[in-house]
Amino acid sequence: MPAKPNPLKVLGERIREMRKVKNLTQEDLAYESDIDRSYIGGVERGERNLSFDKLCQIANALGCDVAALTKGLPKDKP
Amino acid sequence: MPAKPNPLKVLGERIREMRKVKNLTQEDLAYESDIDRSYIGGVERGERNLSFDKLCQIANALGCDVAALTKGLPKDKP
Repeated sequence: MPAKPNPLKVLGERIREMRKVKNLTQEDLAYESDIDRSYIGGVERGERNLSFDKLCQIANALGCDVAALTKGLPKDKP
Repeated sequence: MPAKPNPLKVLGERIREMRKVKNLTQEDLAYESDIDRSYIGGVERGERNLSFDKLCQIANALGCDVAALTKGLPKDKP
């Protein structure tokens, strides 16, 4: 049976991917979003059930909207 | 000076709008999403900084993806 898709994991992977496209380190993203670097790491690993406010801060720092990170979620497979 | 756009307020308005399009009451949405009705009310009024998991539960109950509710956020004006 295929593993149940985990929307937080998919979201974290997309944030990491978008961060790399923008040539930002986790430190850069932490600074730009005003969120602790270790928290950003946890988000990218899908370990943090972040609030909508924090998701907005991250999207803003990445120069995209929240929709760009959440297309197809929660149903998309990782 | 125009008021600073509040992404939680815009999100709440969109959730309410989508709920009405689907002909659901707050009670229906609460049941379908497995979230307390008063919490749903707070989300629709932009008073609750909900987690990504809860946002996924709501989107799922509305039959849409999170992206359908978050286009242009955080920058869009209400």
